[in-house]
Amino acid sequence: MTGGYAARPAPAGTGRRPTLAVVGATGAVGTVMLEFLSRRADVWGEIRLVASARSAGRRPAVRGVETPVLALSEEVFDGVDVAMFDVPDEVAARWAPIATAKGVVVVDNSGAFRMDPDVPLVVPEVNAHAARVRPRGIISNPNCTTLSMIVAVGALHAEFGLSGLVVSSYQAASGAGKAGVDTLRAQLAAVVGASAGTQPGDVRRAVGDTLGPFPAPLALNVVPWVGSPREDGWSSEEMKIRDESRKILGLPGLPVSATCVRVPVITTHSLTVHACFENEVSVAQAHEILANAPGVVLVDDPAEGEFPTPADAVGTDPTWVGRVRRALDDPKALEFFACGDNLRKGAALNAVQIAEFVAAELTTP
Amino acid sequence: MTGGYAARPAPAGTGRRPTLAVVGATGAVGTVMLEFLSRRADVWGEIRLVASARSAGRRPAVRGVETPVLALSEEVFDGVDVAMFDVPDEVAARWAPIATAKGVVVVDNSGAFRMDPDVPLVVPEVNAHAARVRPRGIISNPNCTTLSMIVAVGALHAEFGLSGLVVSSYQAASGAGKAGVDTLRAQLAAVVGASAGTQPGDVRRAVGDTLGPFPAPLALNVVPWVGSPREDGWSSEEMKIRDESRKILGLPGLPVSATCVRVPVITTHSLTVHACFENEVSVAQAHEILANAPGVVLVDDPAEGEFPTPADAVGTDPTWVGRVRRALDDPKALEFFACGDNLRKGAALNAVQIAEFVAAELTTP
Repeated sequence: MTGGYAARPAPAGTGRRPTLAVVGATGAVGTVMLEFLSRRADVWGEIRLVASARSAGRRPAVRGVETPVLALSEEVFDGVDVAMFDVPDEVAARWAPIATAKGVVVVDNSGAFRMDPDVPLVVPEVNAHAARVRPRGIISNPNCTTLSMIVAVGALHAEFGLSGLVVSSYQAASGAGKAGVDTLRAQLAAVVGASAGTQPGDVRRAVGDTLGPFPAPLALNVVPWVGSPREDGWSSEEMKIRDESRKILGLPGLPVSATCVRVPVITTHSLTVHACFENEVSVAQAHEILANAPGVVLVDDPAEGEFPTPADAVGTDPTWVGRVRRALDDPKALEFFACGDNLRKGAALNAVQIAEFVAAELTTP
Repeated sequence: MTGGYAARPAPAGTGRRPTLAVVGATGAVGTVMLEFLSRRADVWGEIRLVASARSAGRRPAVRGVETPVLALSEEVFDGVDVAMFDVPDEVAARWAPIATAKGVVVVDNSGAFRMDPDVPLVVPEVNAHAARVRPRGIISNPNCTTLSMIVAVGALHAEFGLSGLVVSSYQAASGAGKAGVDTLRAQLAAVVGASAGTQPGDVRRAVGDTLGPFPAPLALNVVPWVGSPREDGWSSEEMKIRDESRKILGLPGLPVSATCVRVPVITTHSLTVHACFENEVSVAQAHEILANAPGVVLVDDPAEGEFPTPADAVGTDPTWVGRVRRALDDPKALEFFACGDNLRKGAALNAVQIAEFVAAELTTP
């Protein structure tokens, strides 16, 4: 679908700060969104919280003020300038167009619109400009796994010209929501006293039926399957990394091979990255690029014990990068390890950044 | 060093079964060796157990018989035909030549001799023939991480012709020995009751000083560093995968990029593999090759929840392989996930296989 979307009259010059709706405000990501929104008092006027009818009536704090949660309805979008959605794909697919029909700019965290050619897929550090062209009034936020490496990859691409990616993920339980975290903690409690992990099936026996959202035990294990089946043995999560990286970087033909694996970490996704470039690379140049890249923290002196781990990156905003090496057999390829909090930059923070980008656009005369 | 090694007069035709020494018999891998040796009563005559003076006098069972552990000395090799060593590099470097000087064929699990051009590096399913040519009387057993994928890679190479590897590891705590396992279990006990894993440093605080052999907390974390520093930011473990894969496969110029990461699993190493070949590949062909490859179990129907995990592979002998896909952008590349018990095929089993290969050679007229 192209055209048909009329931009809402901007509040530019009116002195009025734009109104924001947070749809899915009581979920794991929504809760982190409210934390980010509370850090900056000067961006938004009203912040309206929206969730399913089940969560309506709760009063989480935003900017220090207890704010009632409204049940999702057409009316909650009246007078709203920007709405951030963190809801399941099918809910986003239904409700985002209802919001945009009222002139709301929707920043959507779901997978419903990401590959729509009329919906930009935005990581502000990489392609903020794309957020300005939004024929459907929707801007999509990438998948948390893509987001855990794409800021670093984008910075290197800008200098060296990316020509291929081979990545493997080490994904945290919270990527499967609160149920994922609860499941991992319950499984850990079940295996911690036992001697599980040394005989075939002993972890399965210890955790019993508590698989939760995972297709195999996660405690004392790794699970090489994330998402749902796609063609030819690929998982939806692996296809997202490929499709989204191509779209964000503006490289529609980029070769991308991803293998997604869940690991027993609560929060923060990690990836190993083998990145091939058009030009020769050096570790010194890569270090300089990464050290200066907005949204990236470079931690790279393994001989001194300096490398990123999820336990250090969790709860922080940037993408952490380390273990940068030039491929020994290819002067145009780099290896590195990246990790980032999948609830923060991987979801809530990137959405807030996009929403603030739109707010600035709306209020700039 | 070449030449100078005179093969011990074989017991071929004497009716005598060869004598085996197990050096390092009381360690984690040595214990598994004794388990494998106990399965087959008809290969070895005497089995002599050897360890450090500290462990001498213990009486572990071999083939159902309590057998005294002897302290390592020159004399323990008198009359021995084959010795399996599982000891630290420096102990192997000193004692293997003492054994070979007495005509013993040494099967060494350490890294001391693996890259010596006069020492074959053997995985019986891949290059058994190499074990016949041993100028120093020593045959090396590969590193456990290489062994967790090389049987599958070797089978595919034989059909398609390997031209490059990009691998990422998911390595278990027991790769760092008993101290690794004890450390992970202690750390898990420290974090299981807490809400650790959601705030920066909370896992570090929970585990305190119990890092054991790891450079960062392993519970609720992944650690992208295994081994010791090598040039240009590479770790010794990553270089082993590259060097050993090239030597075992007989491809000295093979491009190999490896990133090694420790994960909170007790035993069984996993790897994601991106393998490029000289010829076009298909998943159907790859499945047929892997399903028929000795030492490989193919588990590959993810839509039905069928894929390998460490919790299933632990305590078993083969390399488990699944998630086989053809690269979407390269008809000559395959992706797959492999895992194998790092104490069994990754160490004890492969050494026993090599020793039995030598025993058969010695006793065949």
